[in-house]
Amino acid sequence: MPNQYLDPNLKVFTLNSNPELARDIAKVIGVELGKCSVQRFSDGEIQINIEESIRGCDVFVIQSTSSPVNEHLMELLIMIDALKRASAKTINIVMPYYGYARQDRKARAREPITAKLTANLLETAGATRVITLDLHAPQIQGFFDIPTDHLMGVPILADYFDSKDLGGDIVIVSPDHGGVTRARKMSDRLKAPIAIIDKRRPKPNVAEVMNIVGNIEGKVAILIDDIIDTAGTITLAANALVENGALAVYACCTHPVLSGPAIDRIENSKIKELVVTNSIALPEEKLTGKIKQLSVAALIGEAIIRVHEDQSVSTLFD
Amino acid sequence: MPNQYLDPNLKVFTLNSNPELARDIAKVIGVELGKCSVQRFSDGEIQINIEESIRGCDVFVIQSTSSPVNEHLMELLIMIDALKRASAKTINIVMPYYGYARQDRKARAREPITAKLTANLLETAGATRVITLDLHAPQIQGFFDIPTDHLMGVPILADYFDSKDLGGDIVIVSPDHGGVTRARKMSDRLKAPIAIIDKRRPKPNVAEVMNIVGNIEGKVAILIDDIIDTAGTITLAANALVENGALAVYACCTHPVLSGPAIDRIENSKIKELVVTNSIALPEEKLTGKIKQLSVAALIGEAIIRVHEDQSVSTLFD
Amino acid sequence: MPNQYLDPNLKVFTLNSNPELARDIAKVIGVELGKCSVQRFSDGEIQINIEESIRGCDVFVIQSTSSPVNEHLMELLIMIDALKRASAKTINIVMPYYGYARQDRKARAREPITAKLTANLLETAGATRVITLDLHAPQIQGFFDIPTDHLMGVPILADYFDSKDLGGDIVIVSPDHGGVTRARKMSDRLKAPIAIIDKRRPKPNVAEVMNIVGNIEGKVAILIDDIIDTAGTITLAANALVENGALAVYACCTHPVLSGPAIDRIENSKIKELVVTNSIALPEEKLTGKIKQLSVAALIGEAIIRVHEDQSVSTLFD
Amino acid sequence: MPNQYLDPNLKVFTLNSNPELARDIAKVIGVELGKCSVQRFSDGEIQINIEESIRGCDVFVIQSTSSPVNEHLMELLIMIDALKRASAKTINIVMPYYGYARQDRKARAREPITAKLTANLLETAGATRVITLDLHAPQIQGFFDIPTDHLMGVPILADYFDSKDLGGDIVIVSPDHGGVTRARKMSDRLKAPIAIIDKRRPKPNVAEVMNIVGNIEGKVAILIDDIIDTAGTITLAANALVENGALAVYACCTHPVLSGPAIDRIENSKIKELVVTNSIALPEEKLTGKIKQLSVAALIGEAIIRVHEDQSVSTLFD
Amino acid sequence: MPNQYLDPNLKVFTLNSNPELARDIAKVIGVELGKCSVQRFSDGEIQINIEESIRGCDVFVIQSTSSPVNEHLMELLIMIDALKRASAKTINIVMPYYGYARQDRKARAREPITAKLTANLLETAGATRVITLDLHAPQIQGFFDIPTDHLMGVPILADYFDSKDLGGDIVIVSPDHGGVTRARKMSDRLKAPIAIIDKRRPKPNVAEVMNIVGNIEGKVAILIDDIIDTAGTITLAANALVENGALAVYACCTHPVLSGPAIDRIENSKIKELVVTNSIALPEEKLTGKIKQLSVAALIGEAIIRVHEDQSVSTLFD
Amino acid sequence: MPNQYLDPNLKVFTLNSNPELARDIAKVIGVELGKCSVQRFSDGEIQINIEESIRGCDVFVIQSTSSPVNEHLMELLIMIDALKRASAKTINIVMPYYGYARQDRKARAREPITAKLTANLLETAGATRVITLDLHAPQIQGFFDIPTDHLMGVPILADYFDSKDLGGDIVIVSPDHGGVTRARKMSDRLKAPIAIIDKRRPKPNVAEVMNIVGNIEGKVAILIDDIIDTAGTITLAANALVENGALAVYACCTHPVLSGPAIDRIENSKIKELVVTNSIALPEEKLTGKIKQLSVAALIGEAIIRVHEDQSVSTLFD
Repeated sequence: MPNQYLDPNLKVFTLNSNPELARDIAKVIGVELGKCSVQRFSDGEIQINIEESIRGCDVFVIQSTSSPVNEHLMELLIMIDALKRASAKTINIVMPYYGYARQDRKARAREPITAKLTANLLETAGATRVITLDLHAPQIQGFFDIPTDHLMGVPILADYFDSKDLGGDIVIVSPDHGGVTRARKMSDRLKAPIAIIDKRRPKPNVAEVMNIVGNIEGKVAILIDDIIDTAGTITLAANALVENGALAVYACCTHPVLSGPAIDRIENSKIKELVVTNSIALPEEKLTGKIKQLSVAALIGEAIIRVHEDQSVSTLFD
Repeated sequence: MPNQYLDPNLKVFTLNSNPELARDIAKVIGVELGKCSVQRFSDGEIQINIEESIRGCDVFVIQSTSSPVNEHLMELLIMIDALKRASAKTINIVMPYYGYARQDRKARAREPITAKLTANLLETAGATRVITLDLHAPQIQGFFDIPTDHLMGVPILADYFDSKDLGGDIVIVSPDHGGVTRARKMSDRLKAPIAIIDKRRPKPNVAEVMNIVGNIEGKVAILIDDIIDTAGTITLAANALVENGALAVYACCTHPVLSGPAIDRIENSKIKELVVTNSIALPEEKLTGKIKQLSVAALIGEAIIRVHEDQSVSTLFD
Repeated sequence: MPNQYLDPNLKVFTLNSNPELARDIAKVIGVELGKCSVQRFSDGEIQINIEESIRGCDVFVIQSTSSPVNEHLMELLIMIDALKRASAKTINIVMPYYGYARQDRKARAREPITAKLTANLLETAGATRVITLDLHAPQIQGFFDIPTDHLMGVPILADYFDSKDLGGDIVIVSPDHGGVTRARKMSDRLKAPIAIIDKRRPKPNVAEVMNIVGNIEGKVAILIDDIIDTAGTITLAANALVENGALAVYACCTHPVLSGPAIDRIENSKIKELVVTNSIALPEEKLTGKIKQLSVAALIGEAIIRVHEDQSVSTLFD
Repeated sequence: MPNQYLDPNLKVFTLNSNPELARDIAKVIGVELGKCSVQRFSDGEIQINIEESIRGCDVFVIQSTSSPVNEHLMELLIMIDALKRASAKTINIVMPYYGYARQDRKARAREPITAKLTANLLETAGATRVITLDLHAPQIQGFFDIPTDHLMGVPILADYFDSKDLGGDIVIVSPDHGGVTRARKMSDRLKAPIAIIDKRRPKPNVAEVMNIVGNIEGKVAILIDDIIDTAGTITLAANALVENGALAVYACCTHPVLSGPAIDRIENSKIKELVVTNSIALPEEKLTGKIKQLSVAALIGEAIIRVHEDQSVSTLFD
Repeated sequence: MPNQYLDPNLKVFTLNSNPELARDIAKVIGVELGKCSVQRFSDGEIQINIEESIRGCDVFVIQSTSSPVNEHLMELLIMIDALKRASAKTINIVMPYYGYARQDRKARAREPITAKLTANLLETAGATRVITLDLHAPQIQGFFDIPTDHLMGVPILADYFDSKDLGGDIVIVSPDHGGVTRARKMSDRLKAPIAIIDKRRPKPNVAEVMNIVGNIEGKVAILIDDIIDTAGTITLAANALVENGALAVYACCTHPVLSGPAIDRIENSKIKELVVTNSIALPEEKLTGKIKQLSVAALIGEAIIRVHEDQSVSTLFD
Repeated sequence: MPNQYLDPNLKVFTLNSNPELARDIAKVIGVELGKCSVQRFSDGEIQINIEESIRGCDVFVIQSTSSPVNEHLMELLIMIDALKRASAKTINIVMPYYGYARQDRKARAREPITAKLTANLLETAGATRVITLDLHAPQIQGFFDIPTDHLMGVPILADYFDSKDLGGDIVIVSPDHGGVTRARKMSDRLKAPIAIIDKRRPKPNVAEVMNIVGNIEGKVAILIDDIIDTAGTITLAANALVENGALAVYACCTHPVLSGPAIDRIENSKIKELVVTNSIALPEEKLTGKIKQLSVAALIGEAIIRVHEDQSVSTLFD
């Protein structure tokens, strides 16, 4: 018999990006998903109908701004507007995957900072809290002036590898310079050394070479990233690791964007297994044998309960 | 030899919704379109690169938020963010077609007011002015706290009919109750009477009947609407007019959304010609023989010059 | 024995525009009106004294911004400021009549949009919700970023006519082009056809003629508008209807502004009865025999209770 | 031949409170007043028509929020909204008299702070600068986040007395405890001592007595206040001064509110002459022989020129 | 046995300016101070750790922005940011002494209004209420748009003198022109007359003279100010009073800033006793025999309870 | 003969953190520093006097928020308030060192994000642009909604090493995991490989060990960080490099905070030379023989000219 959450003022709604995850979260909490339809008019405009009163409720909306990112973001903004005008007490946005997170600074002249724009849009629409997971840069928390709860998916990934016999000493490998801190956190949990892939061009007009900084020979390498998008970097890294003597290569990330050639590249790479979370829903055809998807529903469900009951969320991380 | 606008501080950029109209507007003004690329990453995120300095400039961005509306709106918001951070002096949004305009009030419980949300998003991103055309409801001007210039496309449509021999006395017909004011403006310009289609169900479980309020017998009817979307209302209206004795039926609108079954319906209807503007770009396949598209480039180009030079825009309407 | 509302955190205050309606609303709810004096200093400045603690309360302030509109609006803004500084939990503005609603768009160059300005002023002062009735344009809801509850007075008017023997088949008549949607709603409730008055000048320098679009001959006409101000349009319409063969003419509106020559015009017109609500208080001398005033106290009182108890307000309309 | 100001981007408009002062200011600057009509609809709503383009201009609006204060304030707010939407470059509010200035703090529980509310309303409407004169409390400058220029009328009053033979040694008298700093500034300019009227009740249920703190015997007393409203305090003070041996009593203030019984009281008092500025327009019937009105047009005109030309305004005070 | 406050949602935190007062306030309320460390990194940056969950709580932070004012203000702003991000329900700032209060207007060209800046910074950081004591100018309440509770310390000072045998008739003396209103309030409570010190330079290049306006001969003078900073004015005033025949001189103020030479000046002056509150913590070495410090803990503790329980705070003053 | 900048509307002011750098910047531009005094009252409150008119000017304020950070930040905020109220056209904050940059995310429960708070405070005070150098995290640009110009100091450091004979092959070393991207940028400029110090505890209760990931034996190591504060990490890293066979160790950073034991540690370490910029002023006693300070005045001066003249700043980086 499933548990049941008794306070009717906690409402969970899903939009179109992760309905399955949302159902799992609702089950963890012990509520039905709120009644709401999100559709497209013939010309592509979004039409949202909230079909039950949410006056005075703490409303949680589950929506990753994964691909199609602009559709999912606009669904979210319009939903927030509807909830605000319908007198929700609080509007809590649960974004397991925060789209546009990589556009978090001006890397070149006249670039937008779309991750900040997105934060401003959510606040303008009326969001009162954001719950998210493994932000590309933790500074994105500071893009908001409303409270944020930043959950961590790395422990879920680490626990998976910890409980698995990988057949040798392991080394945690960052596929680029920006991810070393993340690799270091994983290596702390798994008590393993780290290495870094240092891709560079030895001379102009010469192909890039994958140098490996650190010792990986004879070890089982676990590549870790926060987001795997086209999988170019991670698969080249995997192959370089094998060529340089790694016993085997696993890869993991929190957010499986897996766009364009990603699945093909992974299938054709030396990666033995790619471990990801369900922060982004994967269609059947992407769930090849090499991909293992772990659920964050329990983590998020527990966070929602704690937020609603004014309990500390940080204790979730101990 | 084309004219050339000399002040380099007036910059016109186009995004992806109306590049052809933007080129025509630039030609009217006498400038080159600003250099800028707007692309999609493999996962669908928008990437904008403004490729020339716009510091201290009056920038005008041409973008209708037509279908795909969410993509076009996000392009616009991200462009505004980029322009703001790149120190534009003013950021003037030129939206010949304002998407989501029909979601301008709460018609039912817990509905969003997406047209207001959109206005808030544009202001939050950093827009300093909006130039638009034939808003679905003129009250949308009040959704903004920045200056708006509301141009009128009806005169362009009226002039077209005025210069054409329609072969009989004309009557201007509103296809529903909400559009009578618009029909009345057209009838003033063409010095013609008006009529209204009053669709209603005589009794429960009986098919709707198209009553015609006003006299159309033996006349050439011109149906007018601001937006024609799926073309259901307008084609049923046209057929009813013919059945009730109209000599011929023309139709016109400013914004040819023409989604879903629209083109088929028009082709199969009694409408002799549908006259529209290019506020929304129409693909080749929609430009059937029945559709006549008039350009608003001269109108918008002139408005941009006047805004840049601090001249009155209202005199455009005299 | 009157009912009594037990939760002391619901407080209802009245200002000077509709004290009688406020008393009726308080009676419907079962509370005493909050103690508060609103006076003028000798130089005309408003002095407000709230004479009981409202810390932590849901406060509802009843005030139509009817004539003298600027006095009533400033009373309201100052009251909101006082409530905000006195630590009210929520400040709910109940404006049965929303003054300046007709200035809702820029109809000509360099016009203000005073209805939007008013909305901004109310939000700036500190209002957290607006409850209003039959807005001139429903888009005014979108002028606010706080929740609004938009109540409907048309059913009250329709019910009155429905229960009355009018002595013939009826037709609902819109006195101008902008009001056809409203007329259509009334006609739906009373299952009657519609007609429209189409006032126009046949040629320059010739007097305007009242054309009637639709069939009214031999019928009892009910003219409907949202606001009747100087009563010029409605009385001319009534007379034209009679001249064109209407059996009798009734008129109705939600908001009886009735300024300047209105009462005289009505008295001298062919209107048999003018039915209005008490959204605007009418002085004795305006309550001539022709005017019937219906109360909205029950509707508003019920809405206030529902807002305070976080129940759906939309169900009021079913 | 009058001077003429050549830059057409400086525009001066008047509303209804001080048209004569506005004309004088315009003459000082050398411009025509901007074309604009400010009228009332039959129901009392304000209708503003700006009848010339002000795009890109520095606009100065002359309006004291004197009685009827709410009408004058609303005129001002609506004008600002119109100017903002009509693309004024800057909107500079010139309020020689700042109404509601005395409601500048919570003196009792649950009072509004209307002077701050007013500042917020002006900023919300779109004002970009405020120019004002002798604020009741100089802290009101801090109620604004936009620049303020605070002009001083006391020197104009002092110069008047300085150039007049008053027939004896003078003493500057503050009519109450709050005005001593103001009296002290006057006394510095006129190199005279000060005294204070200390009104108090010796015992409960005994009439208040006007004690005089300081030496006034055999001297010509000049009472000074910023605002004289009903003139109760100042006339009682004058009479007390004479009873206690003052040779003669003059009174002065910047802002002649003079409401209710003020004129009668002054006429019947021992005040020999009341010297005021034209920050508030006085109707003929208030301009009795005892009242001398000095113009602030030159001061304000010069300030407007300096603001427009980005010159220091503070040097006006040296 | 101490009382204990049962609602765990009332939390009181102290920062570094008045920890002793905070402990006394906590004792009055019956709570433990919240666990929190406020430290400096080696480079002087402030590090705040809130060591218990405060989700959903009404948090009160006790911090005077006394010297070092910038350190104390930044501690407060950073604490507010931390509380906001940690999901406090309300953030109530208790500032017994409001630093920078004397910079409350532009006294000269191009001056900041730092007291307003401070108010803006507190609101931006996220404060939802301010509780303070004897503001230098009561208008500072209007610098805030959040509710403020302005407590009064004068009654505590007055009660002290009332219960003490001062050995003669008393007179309340304001040390300058700006403080007469404050002196008048004290004189009302003690039923005593007032006098004013009128410091002025008789001629250029001649030393300033301390004139005394009002009668102090043979009386016990009580000098009152809100803030005593370097004590120059008050000690000169005291000496002048004795020279002009005062029997004895007491001094009092709410806020003992006592910076620079203050203690020396007081020790060497004719002031018999200086009575102050503990709104500002005084170090041992400043607590000389002449200084009597009265506690405001009971007053503030009671105010906090009333705010938390939504009871009227104004009744504290009756 | 020095160059002279002719446009009087460009004004440069310095506050107290880097007056020498400000003077150098002014010299580069060709202007005198603006006249302004920034002092402390006896009680520590900051007093700012801007001693020349800046109406209508582009004002640039040079101030690093280096130690004492809170004093320097408050100076800056108060200066901005003064400039805003004194009608500056734009207020451009030049912060070569951005204090509190390391508090850029919630690393633990209930932490503030002080770097975002600081950004909000600067915007609230009235800053319209920020120019800064080598931010600790580039995402801090996104904490602002006003334009930022992010200058780079790394090229200045790289050029120095490039022009110096270091006596062997070099390797760029990141002292921790977070700085690898920065090291990589340096290594690109100097065409050298990278290595990373990986400090970790092999088992609980065992001392931390400095592992070196990458090959440094027999090479000249250049340690790079953005900020060197107490110099613990960098000096331990230097010593570990030498112990592991590095030929020599240089260190460099943009921002020499050098607090507490930093100078001693550096003196006693194996670091041969520490190269820094003058983004933070160093007192004489910190400028030991080991420290080489390079100037950023030319870089910043050029940026200011380009901002004022609306030229691209990004071209500075090519």
